[in-house]
Amino acid sequence: MAALARSVLVTGSNRGIGLELVRQLAASPRPPQHIFATCRDPEGPRGKVSAGIGSGMVLSQVDTVNLPSIQGAVWAVKSHLKDQGLNLLINNAGISSHATLRSLDSQEMLDVFATNVVGPLLVVKEFLPLLEQAAKSAGKEGLSCRRAAVINISTKLGSIGLCLGLPEAPMYPYRASKAAQNMVTRCLAAELQDKGILCVAIHPGWVKTDMGTEKAPLTVEHSVRGILTVLASLSQATSGAFLDWEGNSLPW
Amino acid sequence: MAALARSVLVTGSNRGIGLELVRQLAASPRPPQHIFATCRDPEGPRGKVSAGIGSGMVLSQVDTVNLPSIQGAVWAVKSHLKDQGLNLLINNAGISSHATLRSLDSQEMLDVFATNVVGPLLVVKEFLPLLEQAAKSAGKEGLSCRRAAVINISTKLGSIGLCLGLPEAPMYPYRASKAAQNMVTRCLAAELQDKGILCVAIHPGWVKTDMGTEKAPLTVEHSVRGILTVLASLSQATSGAFLDWEGNSLPW
Ligand SMILES: NC(=O)c1ccc[n+]([C@@H]2O[C@H](COP(=O)([O-])OP(=O)(O)OC[C@H]3O[C@@H](n4cnc5c(N)ncnc54)[C@H](OP(=O)(O)O)[C@@H]3O)[C@@H](O)[C@H]2O)c1
Ligand SMILES: NC(=O)c1ccc[n+]([C@@H]2O[C@H](COP(=O)([O-])OP(=O)(O)OC[C@H]3O[C@@H](n4cnc5c(N)ncnc54)[C@H](OP(=O)(O)O)[C@@H]3O)[C@@H](O)[C@H]2O)c1
Repeated sequence: MAALARSVLVTGSNRGIGLELVRQLAASPRPPQHIFATCRDPEGPRGKVSAGIGSGMVLSQVDTVNLPSIQGAVWAVKSHLKDQGLNLLINNAGISSHATLRSLDSQEMLDVFATNVVGPLLVVKEFLPLLEQAAKSAGKEGLSCRRAAVINISTKLGSIGLCLGLPEAPMYPYRASKAAQNMVTRCLAAELQDKGILCVAIHPGWVKTDMGTEKAPLTVEHSVRGILTVLASLSQATSGAFLDWEGNSLPW
Repeated sequence: MAALARSVLVTGSNRGIGLELVRQLAASPRPPQHIFATCRDPEGPRGKVSAGIGSGMVLSQVDTVNLPSIQGAVWAVKSHLKDQGLNLLINNAGISSHATLRSLDSQEMLDVFATNVVGPLLVVKEFLPLLEQAAKSAGKEGLSCRRAAVINISTKLGSIGLCLGLPEAPMYPYRASKAAQNMVTRCLAAELQDKGILCVAIHPGWVKTDMGTEKAPLTVEHSVRGILTVLASLSQATSGAFLDWEGNSLPW
């Protein structure tokens, strides 16, 4: 089996789903040649968790709400990859919020939008030249993660269609931000497909991480195994889709 | 025919769709007893446009991104209505953005979220006691605009499902904000239905206003006539729906 992609960048890879993504990528039988494990504080106590895992792993600083930090990472990645471009960008970094209507605070809601919607979009904007380069050098083949792709880690809680059926608290800021992020994924898929870049939103399941808590039914290993299998199967036909970690399609 | 509601509040009612809403409400054969025409600058050159139209109209200051201004309006409305509560709240104020991926600016995107998502939600939060009061005093009847309702003016451009089919430029901030606003509408509908409050998202069509431009096919009179007919027809069955000015259902 071929590698999922020659080069992969993951945001928020110092813990949770992001850390497990770079771990499993590095441990796979045919690992990507370059894995850019990024997080906002690589020198901090949590940043070191993933340092040095696997060969070909590069740890790099990206705070997704800080434009100069993203631009710095673009330069670092570019100088590593030479002229090959970046194949796979996984926007995983995200924050939650349990605000109810009663506890709602405007600034907190805007912070959630900044991290979950504006951040991922800025990351795509800044890495676009490298994604385009990868798409071009793959020639005329169809869309795939191997060629060039943006994967936005979304959530079932961001499904407007499923909203009424979910028992959880409203979580207005989190849900609204992820619905907005889904719109961004869909617009990106439409805009970037002619450039050879695939875009998909993935719901990882409810996963035991700091965000998902111990109550979650899925281990992070299980979720990420599923996600990576789904990523390997993506093609033109699924660009712009909203899929869960088992490949099932979710309603917007 | 009974009045649509005894009391109605509209945000952004100094021009465009908001102005036409208060105009047609005031001019209807059975007008609401109280029409609160709100805008962010009632003393400014644009604010005066709607002053004094029709009987029962009260002009009041609401900047939807400014919490004290919303809270001030709650007090003004409360003192007008005595113990009757507010029946119908129309979140109409909104801003557009034509940003492309290339021209995207984080702060502009956050401003669009503040106005189109956080603002309407804050307005609901602050007016909730008055809406609950209206719902309660109507007794046990089903959901309707006559009893208590929140109408969020949305747009077809906020439909994630339709996204790929639309020819317009991506308009990431505007589309993403309206998808997020739709999620908010849906969550509010779920949360508030037991309190007797209906919540619906309405797409007004593409309308000749400052935002819609002269190229739009619909006049503001036509769109608003449609919207008011749709509002009069809303019930328990349509709470949480996303409808256009003709009552057609739109995909999320
Ligand atoms: N766990 C679940 O059940 C679940 C379910 C559905 C969707 N998701 C989604 O999956 C993604 C990962 O979640 P998780 O469960 O792994 O959460 P987590 O354990 O809370 O980890 C969140 C990660 O995002 C990073 N992050 C947050 N803000 C950042 C910023 N501005 N710049 C860079 N990194 C930032 C965090 O870095 P720091 O350590 O620096 O804070 C951390 O690495 C999120 O997008 C989340 O919405 C999770
Ligand atoms: N026109 C269309 O084709 C169309 C299509 C779909 C949806 N919509 C939606 O319909 C609604 C009304 O649009 P429109 O076409 O009438 O737009 P418009 O002519 O541009 O008017 C926008 C109104 O919103 C007000 N507003 C903006 N920010 C505000 C704030 N922070 N506080 C209070 N008021 C604020 C403006 O007040 P100022 O005068 O003070 O700026 C103005 O009254 C919007 O939600 C829009 O997204 C319009």
